[in-house]
Amino acid sequence: MAIKNAFYAQSGGVTAVINASACGVIETARKNKDKIGKVYAGRNGIIGALTEDLIDTSKESDADIAALRHTPSGAFGSCRFKLKSLEANKREYERLIEVFKAHNIGYFFYNGGGDSADTCFKVSQLSEAMGYPIQAIHVPKTVDNDLPITDCCPGFGSVAKYIAVSTLEASFDVRSMAKTSTKVFVIEVMGRHAGWIAAAGGLIEDQGIPVVILFPEVEFDQAKFLAKVDEMVKKHGFCTVVVSEGCHYPDGKFLAEQGSRDAFGHAQLGGAAPVVANMIKDALGHKFHWAVADYLQRAARHVASKTDVEQAYQLGEAAVDLAIKGKNSVMPTVDRISDSPYKYQIGSADLKDVANVEKFMPKDFITDDGFGITEKCKRYLTPLIQGEDYPPYKDGLPEYVTLKNVAVPKKLSEFKI
Amino acid sequence: MAIKNAFYAQSGGVTAVINASACGVIETARKNKDKIGKVYAGRNGIIGALTEDLIDTSKESDADIAALRHTPSGAFGSCRFKLKSLEANKREYERLIEVFKAHNIGYFFYNGGGDSADTCFKVSQLSEAMGYPIQAIHVPKTVDNDLPITDCCPGFGSVAKYIAVSTLEASFDVRSMAKTSTKVFVIEVMGRHAGWIAAAGGLIEDQGIPVVILFPEVEFDQAKFLAKVDEMVKKHGFCTVVVSEGCHYPDGKFLAEQGSRDAFGHAQLGGAAPVVANMIKDALGHKFHWAVADYLQRAARHVASKTDVEQAYQLGEAAVDLAIKGKNSVMPTVDRISDSPYKYQIGSADLKDVANVEKFMPKDFITDDGFGITEKCKRYLTPLIQGEDYPPYKDGLPEYVTLKNVAVPKKLSEFKI
Repeated sequence: MAIKNAFYAQSGGVTAVINASACGVIETARKNKDKIGKVYAGRNGIIGALTEDLIDTSKESDADIAALRHTPSGAFGSCRFKLKSLEANKREYERLIEVFKAHNIGYFFYNGGGDSADTCFKVSQLSEAMGYPIQAIHVPKTVDNDLPITDCCPGFGSVAKYIAVSTLEASFDVRSMAKTSTKVFVIEVMGRHAGWIAAAGGLIEDQGIPVVILFPEVEFDQAKFLAKVDEMVKKHGFCTVVVSEGCHYPDGKFLAEQGSRDAFGHAQLGGAAPVVANMIKDALGHKFHWAVADYLQRAARHVASKTDVEQAYQLGEAAVDLAIKGKNSVMPTVDRISDSPYKYQIGSADLKDVANVEKFMPKDFITDDGFGITEKCKRYLTPLIQGEDYPPYKDGLPEYVTLKNVAVPKKLSEFKI
Repeated sequence: MAIKNAFYAQSGGVTAVINASACGVIETARKNKDKIGKVYAGRNGIIGALTEDLIDTSKESDADIAALRHTPSGAFGSCRFKLKSLEANKREYERLIEVFKAHNIGYFFYNGGGDSADTCFKVSQLSEAMGYPIQAIHVPKTVDNDLPITDCCPGFGSVAKYIAVSTLEASFDVRSMAKTSTKVFVIEVMGRHAGWIAAAGGLIEDQGIPVVILFPEVEFDQAKFLAKVDEMVKKHGFCTVVVSEGCHYPDGKFLAEQGSRDAFGHAQLGGAAPVVANMIKDALGHKFHWAVADYLQRAARHVASKTDVEQAYQLGEAAVDLAIKGKNSVMPTVDRISDSPYKYQIGSADLKDVANVEKFMPKDFITDDGFGITEKCKRYLTPLIQGEDYPPYKDGLPEYVTLKNVAVPKKLSEFKI
C-alpha cells in the first residue's frame, strides 16, 4: 500500500499550547516518513479540508516547526465550524472524502475540544459509511478542561497557571492599596459551563489571599455572595473575586451576556466582572477594580505551564503513534498515576466515549459554601501548573514563529460552504 | 551628630517594581549603618507617618529584603492621600515633624509619582519653614511614565513589556480565529492623561500585527477610527485595538467613566474596551473580543522588564546615596546616553522642577493619523522592555514575599486624619 499523507487541523478556540501539539504531530510524522507521507494542515481548520485549502507543512524548516512548541495561537488558523450529522449534510462528508482521495490522505488528526471530538468521531465513521479508508484521531485541546476520560486537556494547565499567577499579583496589589483605596478586585475568567479555570484562582489562598470564586456549577445567590465578600473584607481588609464568565442565576441567565452567539450556538459572554464589581460597590460601598482577561489568558504562552507544554507535545506525538498502530476513532489521553510527585502515562480513549460528554467540576472539588476549592481540588490542580517553559526573547519580546503556510496546489473544483 | 533614622513610604498606585526600589533603599541603608540608622517604613504610605504607624524594617531578614526585588505590589502598603499645602493644613505638617522628632528621623524617602513628588517637595520645605532638619528625597515610580526630566519611570518598562507581550499573544490568537470568528480584539490599558502604556502596544507591529492605538493625547474621532479599523481588517483580515483608559472625546468626556473619583480627585476609569468593541460591531459588524488588563498589567512581575527592575533598584540605591551626600529636595533620575545599545547613567533633578509637571507623549512619537507610534517612539520604548527577570517559582507559583511588618512602638498620642 502506498504511504498515505496526513491531514491535521486546529479547531475552536486556540490556546497557548495547541501549536505544541502540532509540533508533536509534525515532528513525529517526520520521524516516520516510511509510514506517514506529508502532513497537510487545514488552513483555518476543517474549512481548509472542505475548500481544499491545504498547507504543505513539509515546506517549513525543522527550526520553524520546533518553534511551534513555544508559539501560542493556531499556526495554521482555526475555525468555529461544526459539521452537521452525516444524514443532515452528506454533501460535506462526500467533499471531505473527495479531498482526502485527491491528496492521498489516510490520516485525519483533529486538534480540538468537545465539539471537535464530535466532528472527529463523525469523520472516523466515514470508512464504514462511505467506504473510504480513513483513520481519525482526535488530539485533545481545550482551556475549558471539560473533555472526559483524560486527566486534563492541553491548554488548561497554562490558563490555570496564568490565572493563578495573575490573580496572585493583582491580589498583592489590592492588599497594598486597601487602606485608602481599592478593597475588592474582581477578575473575570473563561469557562462557560465548567469552572476549572475559575478554580485555579483558589490556588493562591495558601499565600494568604482571601479569594471568593463564582463557579458556573453553582447558581449565583447575590445575598449569600455579598455576605461572603463582606466577611472577607472585614476579616482581611480586602478581597479578590474570581468570576467565571459562565456564572449564572438560578433561571440560567448569565450575569452578563453580550447577546451574540458563535457558530456553535454558544452565547458570547463577557462583562460579568463589572456587573459583580458594581454589585459590591452598591451593597457594601467598597472601592473596586476589575479586569477581564479574555484572550490574554488562553494566549499567555509567556507564562505557560511546563507540564502543560510537555503534555500537549506528547499527545500530538501519541496521536501519530496511534495512527501508525492502525487505530481509528481514538483520542490519546493523560492518565494520572499519582498527584505528588505528579506521574502520568499517555493512554487512549474511544471517541464514542468522548464526543459530546462534558466534564464538570466534581462536587467534592468545591467547598460547601460554593465559593472556594477543596484540598482535593488543589491536589488535582497543583501538578498541572508546575514548571515554567519560557519562550526565547529578542528585543524584549517573545520570538514567536509565523509559518510560511504554503498552499498545496488544488486538484478539485471549488466548493462553497 | 547622632545618626538619624530614615523614613520610607510608598505612595499611590503600586507597580511590579516599586518593591525593587524599596529593596534598593533598605539594602543601601544597611550598607551605610555608620551614616543612616534604621529604615522605618510608613504602613500604608504617608498615613503611616501621620498616625505614627511605622514599620521597623530592621526586623526583616536580609533574604526577605532581597526578595522584595522580585515581589510586585507595595510591601508596606500604599495610599492615595495627598497633603494639602502648608498654609491649608499646617496641622499635618506639624504632626509629621513630631513623628520625625520622636523617632529621630532625618531622611524622608518618598516613592511615588507626580502627586507624591509634590508631597515630597512640600516636606522638603519643612526644614526652612518649620525649623526641623529633614532631607526629603523622591524615588520616582509610576506606570504612567509621566514624570519629567528622568528618561523613564520605574514601573513603566514592566507594564510596557506586559502590554506588548500580552497584545502580541492575543493578536496571534485573533489572527488564528479571524476566518470564521473574532476579527477585532480590543485591549484597554492604563494611562489617564499620557499614552505611554498604550504606545507599547505599537511595538508589535514589526511582527506583522495591525494595531490601532487610541491615545489620551489624541481627541477621539469615531468616524476616522472606524475607517481605520475597517481598512486594517480589509487588508489583514483582523485587527487589534489598544485603547487607553484616558481616551476621550473632544469635549473631554472619557469613552467610559465609572463615575467615582479617587482621593486625588481623578475619575476612576474603566470600560472603554467594551464601548469601543461594540462601536466596531455596530458599524462594521465584526465579531470582537475585549480585555481590560487593569491591575494585571501593573502587578505583572512575572513578565517584568529586566531593565526596569534594575533601574528601580538603582534609583532606590541612588536616593540613599543622595541623602548621604546631604542633598534635600531632589529626585534621582535615569539619564539616557544612547538608544541602541541602551546606555544610561543615574543623575538627579530638583524636586521643584518635578512636582506638578506631567510629561506627555511628544507629538513626534505619534503617527500623523494619530493611531500609531513612530520609529522615534520605538527607539525610545524598545530599550525599556529589554531583558527578562523572572521571579523564583515554587509549586507552579512565584515565590513573592510577605514581610512581617513589625510595628515600631508608638511614642506619641493618637492623631486623627
